[in-house]
This record gives sequence, structure tokens and C-alpha cells, in this order.
Amino acid sequence: MESVRIFCPASVANVSCGFDVLGFCLGPIGDEMVVHKSAKPGVRITKIEGQNLPTDPNENVAGVAANALLKDYPSSFGFDIEIYKKIKPGSGIGSSAASAAGAVFALNELMGKPLTRKELVQYAMAGEQLASGAAHADNLAPVLLGGFTLVRCNDTLDIIKLPSPKNLYATLLHPKIELKTAHARAILKKTIPLSKAIQQWGNLGAFVSALYTEDYELLSRAMVDKVIEPSRAMLIPEFESIRESALKAGALGSGISGSGPSIYALSEGKARAEKVGEAMLKATQNLDLKVDLHISPINPKGITILDS
Amino acid sequence: MESVRIFCPASVANVSCGFDVLGFCLGPIGDEMVVHKSAKPGVRITKIEGQNLPTDPNENVAGVAANALLKDYPSSFGFDIEIYKKIKPGSGIGSSAASAAGAVFALNELMGKPLTRKELVQYAMAGEQLASGAAHADNLAPVLLGGFTLVRCNDTLDIIKLPSPKNLYATLLHPKIELKTAHARAILKKTIPLSKAIQQWGNLGAFVSALYTEDYELLSRAMVDKVIEPSRAMLIPEFESIRESALKAGALGSGISGSGPSIYALSEGKARAEKVGEAMLKATQNLDLKVDLHISPINPKGITILDS
Repeated sequence: MESVRIFCPASVANVSCGFDVLGFCLGPIGDEMVVHKSAKPGVRITKIEGQNLPTDPNENVAGVAANALLKDYPSSFGFDIEIYKKIKPGSGIGSSAASAAGAVFALNELMGKPLTRKELVQYAMAGEQLASGAAHADNLAPVLLGGFTLVRCNDTLDIIKLPSPKNLYATLLHPKIELKTAHARAILKKTIPLSKAIQQWGNLGAFVSALYTEDYELLSRAMVDKVIEPSRAMLIPEFESIRESALKAGALGSGISGSGPSIYALSEGKARAEKVGEAMLKATQNLDLKVDLHISPINPKGITILDS
Repeated sequence: MESVRIFCPASVANVSCGFDVLGFCLGPIGDEMVVHKSAKPGVRITKIEGQNLPTDPNENVAGVAANALLKDYPSSFGFDIEIYKKIKPGSGIGSSAASAAGAVFALNELMGKPLTRKELVQYAMAGEQLASGAAHADNLAPVLLGGFTLVRCNDTLDIIKLPSPKNLYATLLHPKIELKTAHARAILKKTIPLSKAIQQWGNLGAFVSALYTEDYELLSRAMVDKVIEPSRAMLIPEFESIRESALKAGALGSGISGSGPSIYALSEGKARAEKVGEAMLKATQNLDLKVDLHISPINPKGITILDS
């Protein structure tokens, strides 16, 4: 294999009750990357289309992740990376995770797959560290493993792939405002009431159970976040009314995707997810706000190879 | 049906990462209750064997729970309750839950089963309120439903029955010291660090997943409680050394049962659970401490009818 072209999907982290641990992988939204072997050792970003991002490998999440991998798995040949960016950085649907995971995935393929997808997460973390100032695996895990994932422990990277109910669809509304992950994290309180923590872990336990039993009603009841969302909602104009409109249109639940500003909803069935999208769009109509809307099934595969 | 004799099992609540939400039902340990229909309306506690407990229905958890049920479901006949108490009150394995759940279960049977087991939980709560000063369903749910249960929401009593891996056994060590639930609750801090809450809900999500997949190793890794146990451990002499001895003997995990003082361990297989029991006993040998030891499978049924 001399080169590989891959699809690097977007993802949703901080899924309602699962702050910092629960994420899922999206379907049609994602970047493409092409990585070529090169006789010249080292990593180069030779092309970035779609976004104005640094090509210096030390300043680009893909380059940083690739170099972290090569530190432990040295290669006699080098890598030229092309990034075709479709996920907007700062939109809250795992733009940096797609690039970091894509880079280590592609290198691993070109080196003959010394590592499993799960083992690649730790190297992609280096890219996330650059992007958000804190290395979290809650976007990387779904991008690499697909479906829903739970990061039981971020320190030891104990990651569990959870089942994805087949008829579950996501609606994503991206209000085009700038919102830095580091800022969204800084406004969080460092301590929380025990009573709310109990509610949160009760809901997360129920959410995980609902994924196994495909119990959409339970999933809906469990999609509650009284801990993080109240703090972060104020950073997103009209978050509450957009969320309410999604629920009124029949969404199972709705919340902030990652650290925002994107707002996601989960629905049973594609038709419902589309109706929910229309309702969310309508709720933003009279605001001075540009938005993108996506409808997506839960992507069970994660990163896929398009050509090699 | 003129009378019913039932087995009311013991239970473990506050299972490691699932404080206030996760519980499971024990097998051979439990009370018996016999309830007779009576021409005289109302509830009477006609006999209590095994423990010195109040027979005034307003001061006995079984009486209080029975009367809560009768308030919503009036009966033309009355009930004489006999309680054969084998679970020691204050031992931390759901003594009051067994009596409260038993009373409403038996009355429901004698009235022709107007309610489901899940619907009975709300009435048994009145008994728990009397016993512990706070109404929690985390012991009642496993006693009534059997197996592992999750209380997603204690206010709405949204209770989920979880699967129980077949080869999972519990070891229970009861150090005979007095420890009031209300006191064990009072020493808890009202706020907790967000970072620890995240670990806790990551672990609970993983624990629930492990029950579905029968992944004993994951179950073991998820049996961590950095939030509640450190505060409560100091109320139980040598808790840490007893727990350590259980883990060294091969237990999957170990923690405080309910609000203590009983200490439970979970193991894969009965033989392992017995070895764990021996090790826990040995750890208490040089202490001035009387103890009881029980080995039990996870009881999938909850309360059962012995005779009617």
C-alpha cells in the first residue's frame, strides 16, 4: 500500500448525561484525508483544502498525532498528508478528533497495521491535546471505533464500544458562532452538588441500558443533563428554544454537542430526525444567525478506507 | 387465598460506583413473612420473631408500608402480619426494605394483585422513609424485582431491571457494630469534585455495560467508588484491610453494602466467592469484632411465595 484515502467522520461527545465519557459517531459528515508514503522520512502536511489551518506538522493536530505515533513506532519511510476539511473547526462535532484519528489511522494502515483501532486512541490524544488544551478521548473513541463509545477511564483509556440502536438518527444544527473548547471548559464549576451527580449517573446507567435493549422511551427519559448544560447553554444564543423546538417535534432528546456551539438531537427514525431538523431551523429563523443542518444515522464503523 | 407465606430477601444497595441508584438482590439470606386475611379491617403486626421490633403498625416499617398501600387501595378485609426476622436491622443489607417490600407484596397478593411488582415500590417507600429518614428505592427495587436494578430517578421511581451474569456470586461480611443509616448519610459531603463525578459515571456506565455483556473483567475495573466510600470507610473498623483481603483472594470488587457496616464482594463463581469469604474472615481474626458471613448467588427473582 503506497497511499490511502480515508473518510474521517464527525462525532458528538458529551452526550447529555455522559459528559466527558459518552460519544457517538456521525455518518455522512466528515473529512477526507489522503496519506502517501514518501521516501523522505518524517511527516509533512502537503495540502489542506476547505479550511485555513497550519501546515506545520507541529501546529496541526494531524501532524502532532502522526508524530506521537512515529515516536513509538518509528518508520523508515515518511508520510505526506493531504487534508480535505469539511468539518468546521470549532463547530463542536469533533473536527480535531477527525484529523487526529485520521492521521494515526492512515499511518497505521501504511505501516502494515501494527496497532488496533483502540490502541490508536492514545496517539490521537496528542492531537486533541493541541486542539483543546486537554486530552480527552470522548470524540476520538467514536471516530476510531464507530457507534456509541464510553470512556470508562480517560487516564488508562479504558474504552467500551456500546451498541447503537439501528433506527436511531441524529440531527445536528450548527449555529455559526465562535466558541472555544477551552473557554467552554473554563466556565464549568469545579464542584457539583452530590444530588445532581447522583441524577447524572442514574441517567447515564439508564442510557447505557437503553442502548442494549433498544428502548427508545428509556433513552429519551435518560437524556437529561442538569450538571453541565445549564452552565454552557448561556454561551449559545437561543439554545433553550432550539432544544425545546426539537423536543416538541418529537426528538427523544437534545443537547449541546461537545462543548458547542452545535446542538444535536436524537430521534427514532430518519423521517422524525428530518422533522426535528425543520423545527430546529424554524426556531433560528428570526435570529441573526447563520446555521448548518445535518441529518445522520449513527455511524457504526467509524473511519473507513475509501481507496488504497 | 386466605393467607400467604413469603420469602423476603436481603439486598445490597450503593453498589460501588452506583451510590443511591444501583442494587442487587441476595439469595439465601432473608426474612419470612406470613400475612393472613382478617375479618377485622386494618393492619396488625401479630407476631415478630428473631428481633425486638415494635409491633405498633405505625412504628414498624411493614405496618407503615401496608397502610400506605391501603390508603390508595382500600380493602374491606384486614391483615394480620407475622414477621420472622432473619436479617439484622442496621446490618446494611436491606432489613427494612425486606419488611416494607414484603408487606406490600403480601397484601397485593391477598387483594388479587391489583398492582405490578414495580408499582409496589412506591408504597414500600413509606416504610423506608420511617427506617432511614429518607425514602430511597435502591434496596426496595432489587427486593421486589430481583437481580440488579437501577433507579434512574428516585422522584419518579423510574426503575430498570438489569441483567445478572449467571456466574456472579456475592460474599457478605457483617461486622456486628451499630451504624445508623441516617448518620452514614449525614457524614457525606454535599458537593463533590466534578472530576470525581465524571469517573463515577464513567464507571457506572461501564458496570451496566458489563452486566449486559457478562464481561467480568470490565465489571471488576468498574467497581470503583472514589466519591462515597472514602467518607464512609472510616466508620467501619478495618474496612480497607478487609476489602484488600477480598481483592487479593480474587474478588472482582468489594465495597460497603448500603450504608454499612456490612462489606460485600462480588466474585466469578461460587468457589471463588467462598475463598473470598475465608480471606475476609481471616482479615478480621485479630480484631475484637464479631462477624457473620454469607455467600449468595445474585437472586434473579426477588420476593417469592413459599405457601398460600
